[in-house]
Amino acid sequence: MTYCVGIMLRQGLIMVADTRTNAGIDNISTYRKLHVLADTKDSLVVAASAGNLSVTQLVLGMLNEGLPSRNPDEGPRKIEHMPSMFQAAQLVGEAVMAAAAQLKPALYNAGVASGISLLLGGRIGGGPLKLFLIYDAGNFIECQPDSPYFQIGACQYGKPILDRAMTHDSTIDEAVKVALLSFDSTIRSDKSVGLPFDVMVFRNDPKLPIIKKRIEPQDPYMRNLSDRWSTLLNEGRAAIPDPPFLKEDGGVVELKTAG
Amino acid sequence: MTYCVGIMLRQGLIMVADTRTNAGIDNISTYRKLHVLADTKDSLVVAASAGNLSVTQLVLGMLNEGLPSRNPDEGPRKIEHMPSMFQAAQLVGEAVMAAAAQLKPALYNAGVASGISLLLGGRIGGGPLKLFLIYDAGNFIECQPDSPYFQIGACQYGKPILDRAMTHDSTIDEAVKVALLSFDSTIRSDKSVGLPFDVMVFRNDPKLPIIKKRIEPQDPYMRNLSDRWSTLLNEGRAAIPDPPFLKEDGGVVELKTAG
Repeated sequence: MTYCVGIMLRQGLIMVADTRTNAGIDNISTYRKLHVLADTKDSLVVAASAGNLSVTQLVLGMLNEGLPSRNPDEGPRKIEHMPSMFQAAQLVGEAVMAAAAQLKPALYNAGVASGISLLLGGRIGGGPLKLFLIYDAGNFIECQPDSPYFQIGACQYGKPILDRAMTHDSTIDEAVKVALLSFDSTIRSDKSVGLPFDVMVFRNDPKLPIIKKRIEPQDPYMRNLSDRWSTLLNEGRAAIPDPPFLKEDGGVVELKTAG
Repeated sequence: MTYCVGIMLRQGLIMVADTRTNAGIDNISTYRKLHVLADTKDSLVVAASAGNLSVTQLVLGMLNEGLPSRNPDEGPRKIEHMPSMFQAAQLVGEAVMAAAAQLKPALYNAGVASGISLLLGGRIGGGPLKLFLIYDAGNFIECQPDSPYFQIGACQYGKPILDRAMTHDSTIDEAVKVALLSFDSTIRSDKSVGLPFDVMVFRNDPKLPIIKKRIEPQDPYMRNLSDRWSTLLNEGRAAIPDPPFLKEDGGVVELKTAG
């Protein structure tokens, strides 16, 4: 499994991905899931991936070599040639469809899950930052301010904290912290998601540097965040009163007295 | 969807179930999911159910009327006749298999999801409290102290808080509170789960009354718990320092400077 989050804020764009991959629970490895698809003077496009690793690699390989052009006089079509993030998303969707056509029948016959999904984020030509979620069929949606994040992979464990805390107006600092809390909740309940995590932060101003950080298992900030969060949850839980209906006078309906 | 939790503590047994059911997102009703299967002098057996409502009702109806006996001279076999919780779980599993044989082919042809699962808890004949998880195929497992809870339905949103806080040695008061926090996380992220919630608490001592409480949407304790938890999470999040690697001197690897 995998867990990746993309967050589209008023201040910028955040992508976070874990690195655990497995072929069965007894075969676990570390594998980078945050991939740079285009890195030119004023463009940087990255993708986070979840799902079947061979299908993902086929998609990334096709995009790296470029998809065939309709016009035979033109070279292969690559992300770096696209004039907008929308057209980049279309090209990724096309690669997902082509990879599916090539691999899905054989994988289906072998009984192997072939689904993938991608988060595509970045900017092209100094244009605005964009975030897309590309589905297994190659179709896609763009992230909007009302729901400022996308998840792929093991989404549910880490969703409550995002739903509580993440808005389009969250600061980048706050949003990265909340994203890491979401990852902390996920790795506690799902051993198929694990450290290290890859974090990328794009600020709206294209002149500001793009921040790229790998959070290793021993990262002191992540350990402190995890420990403090755990302590806060325990203390917070203890501060909430016990249910009154467990007391004799709590207005309980007693179903029966056994024995 | 549905969310039900069963918790097996050193002090007793807790069952909690939501009551929301839907036939599509545009057809939502309230339906009791915590059912009494047997209620005699020294036995009380209850089941929480998740999944296809018609299959669930068929299973409950079969158990209520009793399954046919192998010996034609004997009457139908009911939960109240079973000498142990283990044999009660076997009878429920048998009913699940019989309901599947009767309904699954037609539901499959209609493209309707037919899966169900059940939590079976209680005591028989003044014996020890037991909790079983009965799967869609009719097989089952018993709850053990190392993993003191079972969930059915929309499990993932509410699992992190259970994993953090629930042990076999938790008190009943604490465990009911944690279970309600787990439900609070679930209903925030999954609109197919909702109040009212049904709670039952069995104490180890069979002479103590069994507590049965329906928590309505306006329940003041539940609203207070939800509000306080939300405040605590917000304050706790704010108390955690921001990620240092977002600062200029945080040892960040700068991938590139765009623009």
